[in-house]
Amino acid sequence: MPTRRELANAVRFLAIDAVEKAKSGHPGAPLGMADMAEALWRNVLRHNPSNPQWPDRDRFVLSNGHASAMLYALLHLTGYELSLDDIRNFRQLGSRTPGHPEYRVTPGVETTSGPLGQGIASAVGMAVAERLLAAQFNRSGHEIVNHRTYVFLGDGCMMEGISHEACSLAGTLKLGRLIALYDANGISIDGQIDGWFDEDVAARFRAYGWHVVDAVDGHDAAALDAALAAAVAEEERPSLIVCRTKIGFGSPKVDSAKSHGSPLGTAEIEATRTALGWTEPPFAIPQEIKAAWDARKAGDALEKDWDARFALYAQAYPELATAFQRRMRGELTEDWQQKLQEYILSASEKKENIATRVASQRVLEVLVPALPELIGGAADLSGSVGTATSASRTIAPDTWEGNYLSYGVREFAMGAMMNGIALHGGFIPYAGTFLIFSDYAKNAIRLSALMELRVIWILTHDSIGVGEDGPTHQPVEQVAALRLTPGVRVWRPCDTIEAAVAWACALEDSAHPSCFSLSRQNLPFMERTPEQVAAIARGAYILRDCAGTPELIFLATGSEVSLAVAAAQTLEAEGCRVRVVSMPCAERFDAQEASYKEEVLPSGVRARVAVEAAAEDWWRKYVGLDGVVVGMHTYGDSAPAAALQDKFGFTVTNVLAQARKLLV
Amino acid sequence: MPTRRELANAVRFLAIDAVEKAKSGHPGAPLGMADMAEALWRNVLRHNPSNPQWPDRDRFVLSNGHASAMLYALLHLTGYELSLDDIRNFRQLGSRTPGHPEYRVTPGVETTSGPLGQGIASAVGMAVAERLLAAQFNRSGHEIVNHRTYVFLGDGCMMEGISHEACSLAGTLKLGRLIALYDANGISIDGQIDGWFDEDVAARFRAYGWHVVDAVDGHDAAALDAALAAAVAEEERPSLIVCRTKIGFGSPKVDSAKSHGSPLGTAEIEATRTALGWTEPPFAIPQEIKAAWDARKAGDALEKDWDARFALYAQAYPELATAFQRRMRGELTEDWQQKLQEYILSASEKKENIATRVASQRVLEVLVPALPELIGGAADLSGSVGTATSASRTIAPDTWEGNYLSYGVREFAMGAMMNGIALHGGFIPYAGTFLIFSDYAKNAIRLSALMELRVIWILTHDSIGVGEDGPTHQPVEQVAALRLTPGVRVWRPCDTIEAAVAWACALEDSAHPSCFSLSRQNLPFMERTPEQVAAIARGAYILRDCAGTPELIFLATGSEVSLAVAAAQTLEAEGCRVRVVSMPCAERFDAQEASYKEEVLPSGVRARVAVEAAAEDWWRKYVGLDGVVVGMHTYGDSAPAAALQDKFGFTVTNVLAQARKLLV
Repeated sequence: MPTRRELANAVRFLAIDAVEKAKSGHPGAPLGMADMAEALWRNVLRHNPSNPQWPDRDRFVLSNGHASAMLYALLHLTGYELSLDDIRNFRQLGSRTPGHPEYRVTPGVETTSGPLGQGIASAVGMAVAERLLAAQFNRSGHEIVNHRTYVFLGDGCMMEGISHEACSLAGTLKLGRLIALYDANGISIDGQIDGWFDEDVAARFRAYGWHVVDAVDGHDAAALDAALAAAVAEEERPSLIVCRTKIGFGSPKVDSAKSHGSPLGTAEIEATRTALGWTEPPFAIPQEIKAAWDARKAGDALEKDWDARFALYAQAYPELATAFQRRMRGELTEDWQQKLQEYILSASEKKENIATRVASQRVLEVLVPALPELIGGAADLSGSVGTATSASRTIAPDTWEGNYLSYGVREFAMGAMMNGIALHGGFIPYAGTFLIFSDYAKNAIRLSALMELRVIWILTHDSIGVGEDGPTHQPVEQVAALRLTPGVRVWRPCDTIEAAVAWACALEDSAHPSCFSLSRQNLPFMERTPEQVAAIARGAYILRDCAGTPELIFLATGSEVSLAVAAAQTLEAEGCRVRVVSMPCAERFDAQEASYKEEVLPSGVRARVAVEAAAEDWWRKYVGLDGVVVGMHTYGDSAPAAALQDKFGFTVTNVLAQARKLLV
Repeated sequence: MPTRRELANAVRFLAIDAVEKAKSGHPGAPLGMADMAEALWRNVLRHNPSNPQWPDRDRFVLSNGHASAMLYALLHLTGYELSLDDIRNFRQLGSRTPGHPEYRVTPGVETTSGPLGQGIASAVGMAVAERLLAAQFNRSGHEIVNHRTYVFLGDGCMMEGISHEACSLAGTLKLGRLIALYDANGISIDGQIDGWFDEDVAARFRAYGWHVVDAVDGHDAAALDAALAAAVAEEERPSLIVCRTKIGFGSPKVDSAKSHGSPLGTAEIEATRTALGWTEPPFAIPQEIKAAWDARKAGDALEKDWDARFALYAQAYPELATAFQRRMRGELTEDWQQKLQEYILSASEKKENIATRVASQRVLEVLVPALPELIGGAADLSGSVGTATSASRTIAPDTWEGNYLSYGVREFAMGAMMNGIALHGGFIPYAGTFLIFSDYAKNAIRLSALMELRVIWILTHDSIGVGEDGPTHQPVEQVAALRLTPGVRVWRPCDTIEAAVAWACALEDSAHPSCFSLSRQNLPFMERTPEQVAAIARGAYILRDCAGTPELIFLATGSEVSLAVAAAQTLEAEGCRVRVVSMPCAERFDAQEASYKEEVLPSGVRARVAVEAAAEDWWRKYVGLDGVVVGMHTYGDSAPAAALQDKFGFTVTNVLAQARKLLV
């Protein structure tokens, strides 16, 4: 039987040889964390390499994602569908072993990571999902949801603010099934961290309410075993295991930032082989070591046992079992669409002039009871953003049977946690804050899109319509910035009907995050034919038209649609042929077939006026060099909303004046 | 003599009456923090209301900026140029009393605040600036820099991740002159915070190395005095005073989130008057109370004393005194431009083909010795982003005589701290990280622009040119998002010369933050005439031209300029009239006179091809509906950079193919 150090060394050499072959990557962290990985992955982690989708597997998150080569080595050695050739192709075009772990690219990778701190925050989200799913589905004697979330993270993650946000909340929520192993090697890229990071991390996490196992020798297998056992035994609080490690362990660049981000070099690799007594050539793993790592048999047994228990559960609770399977597949209920259609019909009759943030809340009043997989929340703005409904029950450590999370004032963690909830499966997360504070969470939204996750953001108070709170609270560039982020679907609905369709599309669009840009202020209801209602989902449609080819087209979204309509009415009365296009979701419009796009925006009509109380330049995409944009190119101001709309030209008078420039 | 409670009540009623009159605002926090404010502002804060620019004043930051009405009351009562009419005009268009505190709008407001957590982080920056300025200018017996930074912050700030980043670093740096008063009222907008925020804040800050005065009764003047005295006495560590307060103190909505964000209501205001024994009508302050608050005489005496000491200093150290005054005015040295011009001449001869991140570092090698006000730094990527020079010395608690800060992996705090350093005066902060992580700091960059601060960001690894690190590390939408942020100047230079001009403009542009988007990979040097070199500062210029009106114009930036030039050469050889416009800074180009813009981009020439390895849509601003953009509309990938450039079409072949589409 190989020694545990030898088993860890297999990880070490696969990782550093892969980095060396790629001439690119991070050898230091894999060398430093290999013993931690051996202790966790060989003795503790409950997973099944033959089925990375087994619902009750433990989740593993590599928050310091630059150690990807270590993760690939672990996945290969334990038996995931990741070959030695895949590892040899580390960081090459089209490989399954990209530079940082990428969800959907590599079997067994639970989340994309690399942007520091977001991994630990997503792990907190996964642990929330586990507790919540357990509360919703487990029944006495039937523990079908019963797993843990493990995280590796480093000093960089610990410095990032998001680690504070997420770990503070994890403490409050008493996430006893979350276990974080902190690779405390005392080195970050700029060198020894004492000069910029000397906080007492253990004390900090105790202040959060965590169980901390401090000062564990991260290269001592027995010490790691004991720490992991203590963490697993602790069910009341999340656990942090502080592992003192040496970056670049075994190499001549040990304890130096030089081992962090570039290949060790041929001579150094040889020296490492000698120092660690590893005699194998690159990418060769002795059979005995391979066999000791292989987790397929044990994993199959774990899953089979679960299958048997699930079969008993399905006998006792057939409806729950069906619902569980449906939700883990990410499929929606049968009747939610019908209920939403009924709501749209009733809203079409009610013709309410309400803020779109309220319109979204009305939709949620229908959806939350219809879709138990919805897990809502807000960054401490529940009343303002309309994310809580009469069917929303707030989750607390003692009452996991809720469907609403108070994230606190933690936008970034909220975003990364929603990613973790979506990744875990069984839930569709949505949450709200003011649109301006999407800035705080931007990179988590980006990761939602990169991972193709169904995460829904309710972003309200979406323009100078905010009024008195002033320019710090008035978005200008945020809507355009989100639209420019590949894969994000940005909805800026203009009334109750468009808000309902936005929700429908966001729920159906399982491979894209959606961001709703919603007004603080009331907006007038727009009359539509059934055909127009059906066209909303196309992202842009003709809301008001003329006979024949229009002389001028207004394009508008959200709170500015009514301005365009009023301006069009005036021009029509003057005999002008005018069209108004409402464009609640530009990305969906861009995805339509060319004929529809030509029908809505005929390429020959260049007299185009875009109206949106947001950054102007983005609109050149639709109005070109010949059109006009009524938009923002400065910050807003602090005053009542009507005064600001006047000051910044969001009036029918100004929209008309701008349009007339194109008609002379 | 009025009681201290009466003095605090003057603040309370000015604030809540202002909110009531505006029918908008936040009464709860001013009611809760008025006693803290009285203790600090009447007895401890060293300032001069008659001169808000006195260099050695204590700085006060209201990190929970929604309590702006309290700050305006304090500024009015102590004698700043802020009248009762100004307070009556709270939150009205054109008033000096906007909804949240705005730097440059209100005398005595040291920073814009409101986006939670950024105030405390900027205060950490101010405290850094004070220590650094003291180290650079104080001489034995001449303490001309000797002030403190005080901050009020609330639960929301404490939840935000940036408070962790900044306060952890403040502890490491032992900022003994930073004193934070934490308004621990146990309430945030969603209600009692126990369900989402129950960490032990005092223990957390002790873990950071702070001196903590815990559990102070925030409504007990004597207890506050004692706590402040202890904090002032502590010079080795930053101090946190945990003030237990009641939000909405004195009102019927005490201890309730209902007092947070909307006017109390007439009846409730009357009840508050009764409860607190305040008999004055709205906006009336009894003379005795006004007199007790008036800090002008004491402030004048403080400043006169400093003036006398400064005069002695100027006698003893005339050059230092001149330099101090120059730097506090924000003026640059006399010779930096000449040195930069010499560098540009030598770089024009050297014609180096280097990465623009290295080109920027070369410029810094010239600038750092020439401009002692430069304070550099990086978010733990010093070697990669080229922010450290041979003249850079890293600051540590014991060696404040440096000019370089290791911020650690804390992008957001780095941004807010740079804002604080710039606000303090005497310094020009610059710092670096990867462009992709500007996402983490986005809202701090926005606040730089809103406050019109000279803050310089070195954002490297700016496209798929990053290569193997993959899509999490490859910016796509970031450059456009920054360009869309009003007031930000985004530079994407293509070689050593454009990089040098970018630095020159960023330094001269004292009212705008600048963001440099810089390549990881080497870029070819471009030949230019002296006229072309001079035109770089215009933001866009003709780099290569044809005789007569061009048939086609290439627009490109940074790493893609050489592709455009090569494509142009091929087309020229085929007899096509082609122009190449290099556009290193679109915002500066937009600010040129119309004739120059027409000269560079003649409106009649619509065959335009933009080439930039970033989000495509933004470029429609210059190429319109008839042009072509060679850009990105998806995420990148993990592979060697050359393979990615090929995959995503950043090759001469593809640029040519796209251009030919416009020439048929």
